[in-house]
Amino acid sequence: MNKKDQPIGSALTTIDLHDIARASITFGVRGFFVVTPYEDQAKLAKQVIDHWTKGVGGELNPFRKKALELIRVSKTFEDVLKEIEKERGEPVVTIATSAKEISGSITTKNLRQKLDNKDSHVLTFGTAWGLAKELMDGCDFILNPIMGKNDYNHLSVRSAASIYLDRIINYK
Amino acid sequence: MNKKDQPIGSALTTIDLHDIARASITFGVRGFFVVTPYEDQAKLAKQVIDHWTKGVGGELNPFRKKALELIRVSKTFEDVLKEIEKERGEPVVTIATSAKEISGSITTKNLRQKLDNKDSHVLTFGTAWGLAKELMDGCDFILNPIMGKNDYNHLSVRSAASIYLDRIINYK
Repeated sequence: MNKKDQPIGSALTTIDLHDIARASITFGVRGFFVVTPYEDQAKLAKQVIDHWTKGVGGELNPFRKKALELIRVSKTFEDVLKEIEKERGEPVVTIATSAKEISGSITTKNLRQKLDNKDSHVLTFGTAWGLAKELMDGCDFILNPIMGKNDYNHLSVRSAASIYLDRIINYK
Repeated sequence: MNKKDQPIGSALTTIDLHDIARASITFGVRGFFVVTPYEDQAKLAKQVIDHWTKGVGGELNPFRKKALELIRVSKTFEDVLKEIEKERGEPVVTIATSAKEISGSITTKNLRQKLDNKDSHVLTFGTAWGLAKELMDGCDFILNPIMGKNDYNHLSVRSAASIYLDRIINYK
């Protein structure tokens, strides 16, 4: 969504590729899918990924190479789900995140209790002003927003992804 | 430190200002000090801060303004400690973080048990290849590295700061 509450495809922030890939590999995530309907944004993502996985970046920093190798670029959320289902041959469980209070949302601890480890689990983040309601409504679960000491909940998607992954893996 | 294990002053990454300020305000941190000995880096930090706190940035995004208002720029770690002690008039407890296993390091839960809430607490992060041993040796506590599902521990400082703050505030 954008600031005016309209559904949009947001611009790619290349640091998201790095930070979320690094958090993903740390916490044992199998794949990090970047979804954009725009050719130019997909091309930019691929340029960054190639630099670090095939180009000089990976030679200079093999740890970064290993992280960015997790990234794939897709046109739609549905394409991601189809690709995972085809590859893994198990049901795909979708989990949305939001900075807002959404009725029926659950804690990460609660989420873990509901999960069957055989399934594939897709943790979904929006950039700009967050995921569209339509996408969230189609997900199997929605996680509670991350709250701290006050009502300020404008973390970067990089921070939010890192915190949710730490909670899921380390706070069972 | 740099890659060759030499003590350096690292280059400022402006996204660190945003992400760590946003995490700081979320989790109730009173101040976010950016330490650099270099005039040009300090100037760059101040330009970014001014854009968002006094310039057009803050008008467009008041939430970002509120976050970046937490940031101060200092020349040395010692200056930070002196400034906090002078301002708060209470003992300053220093807490180092590291991606490496350091003998005697503790969990965030353990840290909380040791803290007196009247004191000021300074949670310290290094950029580039982390904090110098000399600085860590002078700190009162060192936190355990953030580990996930394997030995990969190359999170961005933005991710690490967000995770540690979430653990300290939400996992008592």
